[in-house]
Amino acid sequence: MNITFSEKMSKIKGSAIREIFKVAGDPSYISLAGGNPSPDTFPNVELSKIAEKYLAENPVLSLQYGVTEGYMPLREAVKNRLRNRENIGTENDDLIIVSGGQQGIELCSKCLLNEGDVVIVEEPSFIGALNCFRSFNAKLVGVSVEEDGMNIEELESKIAENDNVKIIYTIPTFQNPSGNTMSLEKRKKLYEVALKNNIIIIEDNPYGELTFDGEKVPTIKSFDTEGIVLYAGSFSKVLAPGMRIGFCMGCKELIGKMVVAKQVSDVHTPMITQLMAYEFIENFDLDGNIEKARMLYAHKCDVMIKAMDKHFPDTVKYTKPKGGIFIWCTLPEGFDSIDVSKECMKEKVVFVPGSTFMVDMEKPCNSFRLNYSTMDDERIEKGIEILGKVLTKLTK
Amino acid sequence: MNITFSEKMSKIKGSAIREIFKVAGDPSYISLAGGNPSPDTFPNVELSKIAEKYLAENPVLSLQYGVTEGYMPLREAVKNRLRNRENIGTENDDLIIVSGGQQGIELCSKCLLNEGDVVIVEEPSFIGALNCFRSFNAKLVGVSVEEDGMNIEELESKIAENDNVKIIYTIPTFQNPSGNTMSLEKRKKLYEVALKNNIIIIEDNPYGELTFDGEKVPTIKSFDTEGIVLYAGSFSKVLAPGMRIGFCMGCKELIGKMVVAKQVSDVHTPMITQLMAYEFIENFDLDGNIEKARMLYAHKCDVMIKAMDKHFPDTVKYTKPKGGIFIWCTLPEGFDSIDVSKECMKEKVVFVPGSTFMVDMEKPCNSFRLNYSTMDDERIEKGIEILGKVLTKLTK
Repeated sequence: MNITFSEKMSKIKGSAIREIFKVAGDPSYISLAGGNPSPDTFPNVELSKIAEKYLAENPVLSLQYGVTEGYMPLREAVKNRLRNRENIGTENDDLIIVSGGQQGIELCSKCLLNEGDVVIVEEPSFIGALNCFRSFNAKLVGVSVEEDGMNIEELESKIAENDNVKIIYTIPTFQNPSGNTMSLEKRKKLYEVALKNNIIIIEDNPYGELTFDGEKVPTIKSFDTEGIVLYAGSFSKVLAPGMRIGFCMGCKELIGKMVVAKQVSDVHTPMITQLMAYEFIENFDLDGNIEKARMLYAHKCDVMIKAMDKHFPDTVKYTKPKGGIFIWCTLPEGFDSIDVSKECMKEKVVFVPGSTFMVDMEKPCNSFRLNYSTMDDERIEKGIEILGKVLTKLTK
Repeated sequence: MNITFSEKMSKIKGSAIREIFKVAGDPSYISLAGGNPSPDTFPNVELSKIAEKYLAENPVLSLQYGVTEGYMPLREAVKNRLRNRENIGTENDDLIIVSGGQQGIELCSKCLLNEGDVVIVEEPSFIGALNCFRSFNAKLVGVSVEEDGMNIEELESKIAENDNVKIIYTIPTFQNPSGNTMSLEKRKKLYEVALKNNIIIIEDNPYGELTFDGEKVPTIKSFDTEGIVLYAGSFSKVLAPGMRIGFCMGCKELIGKMVVAKQVSDVHTPMITQLMAYEFIENFDLDGNIEKARMLYAHKCDVMIKAMDKHFPDTVKYTKPKGGIFIWCTLPEGFDSIDVSKECMKEKVVFVPGSTFMVDMEKPCNSFRLNYSTMDDERIEKGIEILGKVLTKLTK
């Protein structure tokens, strides 16, 4: 039988860079392609003890069905952290535990988007979010990202040009893939523009804790008095991604609808992983673990940038992130980073070409993304040296 | 700001029986309303050891990102079980690990359904599946369930009357909520009808292993040579529901698309819960655990049926299931089971009125569902005695 798939799901193309991810796990390759956190940051011994204890001593709590909105003490613990550390949360807000930040974006999209509605995204942006919006047959409209974040004039004109803009999706802090951070001024302006136009902002912040120098720009959610910002957070980069624990804070009405959407999806996030996150927050040193991750990535980023300064031709520009796990590189106009990636693959170095992160993935793109979170120092240096040679040869 | 939700998500109404579920967890109530398995069947000590071991000894496997289709050895172990025990799986089939059987239904719906498409459902049927189809703005068309399963003539006429029938959703074995099992003859007829009309069957089988006498009617998937059946299974009733581990087997094309849908939803099912299921299947006694659950539910069902025989008025009819965890009761025509539930709630006994399981939830329904899996024998007997008195009074 020939299956006719839904229109919305027919919109997502298979990845053009499948070959890159196929070899990215092969240890003979130097992979600067991933987005995984370093396993050195996983507090596995502590998590092992927590899981053992709950399963042995509290089988009903850890193995029976739970409530869809999430384990209440975990919700309270996350709310407390958000209140105390980020100044996030009003009496009109509520919080749902989700199975990774990605699920928060998907549930919110399902609750808000009719087919054909417009989602404004940063360009470049996170492929998982772009494909999520595509999977609801939304129309994506890109706004370019500058060193201090979204181009706000462009945002305003894109809103004026398009009916039915329902969502503005942004990763304001240590953006994936650009590594850039939106300035406080732009955050405030973005909020005003969204409010004036009756548009929900999804503020995706998986990397916010990974600040190298300890500085944090206030989140957009922290000045959201009107309940138009859905804040999506995650434990994937500060605890462990394989647990699939994230959270969303937004106005009660939206969170309530997301609970209904989650109920018909995975019913609830597994209990044991919620309990692991809860117990680690309450009785172990999450802040210490975050500090460890920050130091590690600051160091690795430094190693990569130093190698790039040494080996890259002057014509190739790159961002110098203050946190997170990505660097964005741009060749002179007219070049296509796919050509660079093909040459590098022959030399067993892989990374992700920039077109992957664009609204129109077919269009040639002269930028590409590098990741430094998982390779050791030596392989980072070696990979950048090889990449530098390829870039020098190709751009000569 | 006033949020305008998507049309599809506006279709799901809040549950009219919220009050019932609110008190169902209150120990002063006798709850025959749930659908939870008995915690006595959770092998928590073994699962505790497994979790402890993997997290301590293999942090990368148990805490790093995994692949969307699921942990390969678990997929192979489940495929083997399906092949050896249910004769399920052809070379054109594939298997995806999902975060509970419900997620399988949701992913398949998203891949197949455009808004307004028709899904044929048994009536009564599982509320979680009905709401899932509603959440994609599908049109639900009900076909009545007889003692030996769906009325096939009615099915054929409903297909003839409706364009765009994309899915037939069935729980053929120990159905929720009716407790009935579809005969082999009807399964074959259903398959033929679906094939002739180019319709995908979702065969949802969370209760199949819970056969009281060991007998099993072959699954529809076991004679699916054409790849039109998506088989959804779950570890929720044979291991533990809080783990949220299920699986779907279907033709490669459909499973491939479901992988894309899962990628933008929860990315993958958590690694530690997948590892717990895998290790339990491979190195512990899953069949022994299933046997334990079967004996327990056979006993509890027997206790409930005996009490019903004793206390219910003759005018109230009920199914006598050969497995699973539900009994379906029907009052004479003209009665509304909501009235019975209101009276019983005053006496601190709760169950779910039948309208909950119908396409039109607003229409009065003279049936209701009873569950026997979680209460102890004494409370089952006491609950049925009280329910019997209310029924006798109301139907006199």
